[in-house]
Amino acid sequence: MTDTIAAISTPRGVGGVALIRISGADAVNVASRVFFPVSGRSLTDVAHSTAVYGKITESDVNIDDGIATVFYAPRSFTGENTVEITCHGGVYVTGRVLSAVLAAGARPALPGEFTRRAFISGKLSLSEAEAVGDLLYAKTEGQMLLSGSASSSILSGKVEQISSALTSLIARVAVTIDYPEEDLSDIADDELRDRISDIAREVSSLVSSYKTGRAVSEGINAVITGRPNAGKSTLYNLLLGEDAAIVTDIAGTTRDTLTAEVAAGKVLLRLSDTAGIRRTDDVIESIGVDRAREKAASAELLIALFDATAAPTEEDREIASAGGKVKIAVINKTDAAVGGYVEQYEAIAREADADVIYASLKNGDGRSELIAMIESAFTDPSFELGRDAVIANARQAAEARSASESLMSALDALDAGMPVDIVSGELEDALSALMRLDGRDVTDAVIGEIFAKFCVGK
Amino acid sequence: MTDTIAAISTPRGVGGVALIRISGADAVNVASRVFFPVSGRSLTDVAHSTAVYGKITESDVNIDDGIATVFYAPRSFTGENTVEITCHGGVYVTGRVLSAVLAAGARPALPGEFTRRAFISGKLSLSEAEAVGDLLYAKTEGQMLLSGSASSSILSGKVEQISSALTSLIARVAVTIDYPEEDLSDIADDELRDRISDIAREVSSLVSSYKTGRAVSEGINAVITGRPNAGKSTLYNLLLGEDAAIVTDIAGTTRDTLTAEVAAGKVLLRLSDTAGIRRTDDVIESIGVDRAREKAASAELLIALFDATAAPTEEDREIASAGGKVKIAVINKTDAAVGGYVEQYEAIAREADADVIYASLKNGDGRSELIAMIESAFTDPSFELGRDAVIANARQAAEARSASESLMSALDALDAGMPVDIVSGELEDALSALMRLDGRDVTDAVIGEIFAKFCVGK
Repeated sequence: MTDTIAAISTPRGVGGVALIRISGADAVNVASRVFFPVSGRSLTDVAHSTAVYGKITESDVNIDDGIATVFYAPRSFTGENTVEITCHGGVYVTGRVLSAVLAAGARPALPGEFTRRAFISGKLSLSEAEAVGDLLYAKTEGQMLLSGSASSSILSGKVEQISSALTSLIARVAVTIDYPEEDLSDIADDELRDRISDIAREVSSLVSSYKTGRAVSEGINAVITGRPNAGKSTLYNLLLGEDAAIVTDIAGTTRDTLTAEVAAGKVLLRLSDTAGIRRTDDVIESIGVDRAREKAASAELLIALFDATAAPTEEDREIASAGGKVKIAVINKTDAAVGGYVEQYEAIAREADADVIYASLKNGDGRSELIAMIESAFTDPSFELGRDAVIANARQAAEARSASESLMSALDALDAGMPVDIVSGELEDALSALMRLDGRDVTDAVIGEIFAKFCVGK
Repeated sequence: MTDTIAAISTPRGVGGVALIRISGADAVNVASRVFFPVSGRSLTDVAHSTAVYGKITESDVNIDDGIATVFYAPRSFTGENTVEITCHGGVYVTGRVLSAVLAAGARPALPGEFTRRAFISGKLSLSEAEAVGDLLYAKTEGQMLLSGSASSSILSGKVEQISSALTSLIARVAVTIDYPEEDLSDIADDELRDRISDIAREVSSLVSSYKTGRAVSEGINAVITGRPNAGKSTLYNLLLGEDAAIVTDIAGTTRDTLTAEVAAGKVLLRLSDTAGIRRTDDVIESIGVDRAREKAASAELLIALFDATAAPTEEDREIASAGGKVKIAVINKTDAAVGGYVEQYEAIAREADADVIYASLKNGDGRSELIAMIESAFTDPSFELGRDAVIANARQAAEARSASESLMSALDALDAGMPVDIVSGELEDALSALMRLDGRDVTDAVIGEIFAKFCVGK
């Protein structure tokens, strides 16, 4: 039996409508004390998944009118009895409806508490619940696909399938340990090795999916460098594409390195514009340049922009070698290139070990090549979002890695001729890690941490 | 037949859920192209007022999952076929769901278009539709009660009742005009005068209800003055009461006169704090003082604060006579008053023709007296919000006044012995004004103006 919680589940602000969610064993009774269907029936007589129009009152004062939809356990988001009241939007009225619901016997929901209850009642696995939280903050199509219910249930299904294969293998090994003399139930070392290897391959594939998952969900630190007028702001706009809404200025950035979040296909780029890498005697300016160099050195992706209508300078050479684990040289304005400059920039790119894109950014040329190059550097084409199991966050990745390591240790123990119970112990460790990944053996502290990141009302 | 419109009806921002509303003849078909119930049925097979869980897709890409509730005409808010899709909140995902709905055949709704359709299909009168818009912006309990559906339907009912009495009176007069010889159907002048007087009294009562309606919905310009340390900020907090959420700083106010919106009971005060009415030789400061004096002079309410622990000065005298159609003198700190000062402040208040409140604001004493005094000055106790017909805005008030004037002219014409068709013409003018009040004879331009003030999605 759970207590009954309530919250405004829509964003705060003036809008046409707002939704107040009530969940818990007593949800329908609580709601029936404030919501009165125009039909004259009590809300407690309304059937599952039925919407009714009525008045919302508090101590006989009419606060609003709206729609209440009743869902009975377990067929609701939380798996509990749930009432969703849609009332008129507006900060004051919505607040009054919530306070009427609280006065009628609910308590205010904690951040993420509805989703937490969905997890606890078995409606969602932990990775599915995490995905629900991520979806709210999705800014790109990639993030939406990765945190959508399709992806997260594929991941859950995959983890469950691997866990179940591992469980039956552990059971068979256990028979060997318990009855060492019975030849019948014995599992040959070779077969055991093959079965562990199969499972290890699957887990290792999960681990490697996080390359894609991380690039999509957490994003890649990228630096864009280039001399003034090389086309940096055009490149920004080009990466923004038609989807201007996904640009976010990140607060607290310094004036000399602006940072924006930009989608390059599926990949989220946290893009810094380190303007002005150039030699200078000015002390203040040289501090800025040093900072830009540090930023470039630690970047995962460096995009160096060259202007094919101007001769390369020493600065361009320095720009290309400024840093970045992955380097892409964009030779811009190739449609108006002055003879020989393109080749000189190619040489600079080669020297810096950078891949080259030929572009005329102001015409949009080079955009799709650049995006394809970024996607191929930071994602793995064997993992398609929404079709394959992809790990979406560092917590899940850590558990998958831990499972993978235990499986490797199991194989090592087998190769070293160690007793079967040592092997079995490693397999059990791997199973525990997989179960933690999907929330079936996870501590309350971890669960608390995950749901604390949610907003109230989810 | 109407086209099908769609919009995000919840406020923009990150929240647990968002609601997308689709309305129009083709709404269920449009929604069925993007929303697929998990049951495998089509949305077009879902019964009226039933909520179903399902997947939301665009060109086979799974965007989200959520709940769709289907309402069939005329049993919906707009009176048209309507589908409400509740999906995960979050700016990006919600935008994608809306664009999928638009791609499936809906067009983006204009501001207020759902409510406009409810008005056009006869689900709401014009004053009820206006109330829906006001409710979203309600900041006080008074505004909520005035714009709630109970109040607005009482007003609509009252206007309809008066209109119908007027219509039958006009019909009886018409018989007299058309068949002047038939004694039988003739209406005696005395009876006609009585009937017109009855109707005029009802309309005049409507007109006078706007005193209360205006104080509640549009608010009263109030100025709070007093020497430094008289307790002005304590008074602010005292008026805010427990409901701190209703304070709004109004942008563009100067540093010397801060304005805040504050509820004093049912009345909304737009409260300016004109600090520092005092004699000064400083040119800049004297400009500020002049401005404060002007503000006080044009205020509808002046609250003058006096400190009973300090002797009155010339400034206090000036403060009390600074302006304001209604003046309230609050003699503060009476719990620690120094002998004789209270009497001196009473004399100042008497001289300025101000009512007196004795207060100890820091203990909360005087709060309810002040609120009661403000309510009695600016509202009419014979109109109770949520029980009586109360006019809520200037447009409605202008139509009611116009109806009242035509009725007075009809009585004058009758007294002057003018022909009955002159009287009848005035009665018809009065009826037209009443019908415009509730939207039954109103121009498209007026309707357009009313709904343009709404937000998109309502």
